[in-house]
Amino acid sequence: MTNLHLPHGYRFSGVHCGIRPGDTQRRDVALFVSDVPASAAGVFTQNRVCAAPVRVSRERVPASDLRGIVACSGNANACTGDQGMIDARHMAALSAEIVGCRPEQFLVASTGVIGRVLPMPRVEEGIRKAARELGPSAVAFAHAAHAILTTDTRTKISTRRVRIGKDEVTVAGVAKGAAMIGPNMATMLSFLLSDAAVSPDDLQKVLGRAVNQTFNCISVEGHTSTNDTVLLLANGTGPPLKGDALTKFGHSAMEVCSELARAIAEDAEGATHLIRIEVEGLRTDAEARQVAKTIADSALVKTAIFGADPNWGRIVSAAGYSGVSFEEEQLSLWIGDLLLYDHGTPQPFDAAAASAFIKASRDIVMTLKFTLGQGRCTYWTCDLGYEYVRLNADYTT
Amino acid sequence: MTNLHLPHGYRFSGVHCGIRPGDTQRRDVALFVSDVPASAAGVFTQNRVCAAPVRVSRERVPASDLRGIVACSGNANACTGDQGMIDARHMAALSAEIVGCRPEQFLVASTGVIGRVLPMPRVEEGIRKAARELGPSAVAFAHAAHAILTTDTRTKISTRRVRIGKDEVTVAGVAKGAAMIGPNMATMLSFLLSDAAVSPDDLQKVLGRAVNQTFNCISVEGHTSTNDTVLLLANGTGPPLKGDALTKFGHSAMEVCSELARAIAEDAEGATHLIRIEVEGLRTDAEARQVAKTIADSALVKTAIFGADPNWGRIVSAAGYSGVSFEEEQLSLWIGDLLLYDHGTPQPFDAAAASAFIKASRDIVMTLKFTLGQGRCTYWTCDLGYEYVRLNADYTT
Repeated sequence: MTNLHLPHGYRFSGVHCGIRPGDTQRRDVALFVSDVPASAAGVFTQNRVCAAPVRVSRERVPASDLRGIVACSGNANACTGDQGMIDARHMAALSAEIVGCRPEQFLVASTGVIGRVLPMPRVEEGIRKAARELGPSAVAFAHAAHAILTTDTRTKISTRRVRIGKDEVTVAGVAKGAAMIGPNMATMLSFLLSDAAVSPDDLQKVLGRAVNQTFNCISVEGHTSTNDTVLLLANGTGPPLKGDALTKFGHSAMEVCSELARAIAEDAEGATHLIRIEVEGLRTDAEARQVAKTIADSALVKTAIFGADPNWGRIVSAAGYSGVSFEEEQLSLWIGDLLLYDHGTPQPFDAAAASAFIKASRDIVMTLKFTLGQGRCTYWTCDLGYEYVRLNADYTT
Repeated sequence: MTNLHLPHGYRFSGVHCGIRPGDTQRRDVALFVSDVPASAAGVFTQNRVCAAPVRVSRERVPASDLRGIVACSGNANACTGDQGMIDARHMAALSAEIVGCRPEQFLVASTGVIGRVLPMPRVEEGIRKAARELGPSAVAFAHAAHAILTTDTRTKISTRRVRIGKDEVTVAGVAKGAAMIGPNMATMLSFLLSDAAVSPDDLQKVLGRAVNQTFNCISVEGHTSTNDTVLLLANGTGPPLKGDALTKFGHSAMEVCSELARAIAEDAEGATHLIRIEVEGLRTDAEARQVAKTIADSALVKTAIFGADPNWGRIVSAAGYSGVSFEEEQLSLWIGDLLLYDHGTPQPFDAAAASAFIKASRDIVMTLKFTLGQGRCTYWTCDLGYEYVRLNADYTT
């Protein structure tokens, strides 16, 4: 908890209310409250099937006068029909009532099992309890970070403090894991809080850019969830940041998102290797991302890394079916520092040594260099092993 | 081998030449030869990275005077640069020379490990040996079917004989497995032979339609291979079939492809359940296929079935990120006969009984009904379990 910087004018809490059947301990309701109205921005899942809290929150951002976020874990409130919408709105309304603001000034998020109605009496009790425990301390922040977790093995917190002009500005964020983290979990949540003064429109742009280069560049098995939600509040009361000051703020938000996204990929369920895919030399960044995502989603690539198998043919062939147009002579591939495929020609290499290198490395870097332009992308994923199958084969029964 | 119908005017063989290092037994070179020039059609992988034999054969169809197909297993001759092209052309040329035709009258295919140059002295020896053993018998056909296998556990053969007008026409096909079948295997091959008289253009249309509704509707993990090749020869010497006769022939070709495609999905490596996905009620067949393919490729759906987990939220959410536009109220979902999701509302069900049903069923049917139109698709896949990980985690090392 060293170097943890918290923004001014916020209080936090994370408490247990028992959303998971039979669970008597885990924190599962979190509150993040700004003392004054804040600008707010949000980015949400693109799944057509989206959870009730996503529908509710999406309509409320960007906005200039938000006061807080209420979140629960253990139940996604997704595929829950009309009752789900009533419950999501009620979570926001009850939080707002206790804090003393209008219902529309609260955002709401959930994560957990799909298709089950929330146990609302418990959730209400949890929200009241969380409101009583609100505080500005690092411990309160850590409790809130804990309360949004599902099968994550650790909390994910990142903060940045930067000097902008004569002021210090802080961005603090929490997250919970993505995709592979979850048997039916749905799925990634991240909340960022800042004491900067930023207009809602600028805040939305800052967040959109940051998410695009961070949370949208991680994948575990490519299964887009129903609940993905990233929210950013900024409660500074001075004149809104502009120009270089806004850029500097955006850079801090990007750094926080990047650190949280990497932490999610590292903590994916059952993962034994973190895989970084560097793609460069395509016509556009979008093409580079498309190639990287196709490789990241390939079960054949991921099982090969799990087995420490330097099976480069799977990587090259995944690039080949990504939908991006290229000739084999325009591609070279490295695993770590080892050149395996040079402008379309396979290179001799010591397979046993390469396998030993993969086995010994927690972090694996695959680099694909094309000769078609300046487009590039960095993408994160993890390997796929027995533990992923075990964790995902029998969750709900 | 009962009810095996073979077309007139073809000879077959499958022999061992030792393409796999250390292997002294497995048949790995196959020849399919027509006694007279035949119409020929082909459908090939859409991967940008495609094997040398794909490049060679693709240029030679559709055509009116083809004489045969030479294929080898154990080595894909993919990502092998200029040497790979020389070798693929040489395989066809040597076969043609022995049979007594021009090099361009032969098609060539390979399947196996990516990125290794073919052991051409052995392959040449294999082709000479295969030529010596050519024969019209069912045993010879079975040997050829065997020689194209990689990690398949059994040969895949389907034949149909139909009366068209006053003639009998036969379509006989062999195939080897797709995707999951293979650690680095690359991947699906199928060859169909008929004694019908069909023009090259009509033959190409017949094959394109058949592949689209059969081989293009199976998926194991969505990793498009570098070598997928489906070829159809028709060596009838009478006037080409037209109208209803051509339709009837196309129907037989479709049935053969369908039986072979289903056999591939059933024999996928490590699979314990065959999954049939029925999608109906979308605006177009293409939309239905997109939804079905997204579900078929989801590791979360496939691990759930492996674990006999009736985890319908994963199926619905996969439909949601397929890119097809719909509202939740427009979707209902069944597993087997069990309605789990009715026009956007989850239905109460006995999870333990549903799990027991999945566990006891080798074949699982998922039915998604939308209310948006008449578009429909049937798609085949399999589950994903420990055996898939084991087989794919350490192949090349």
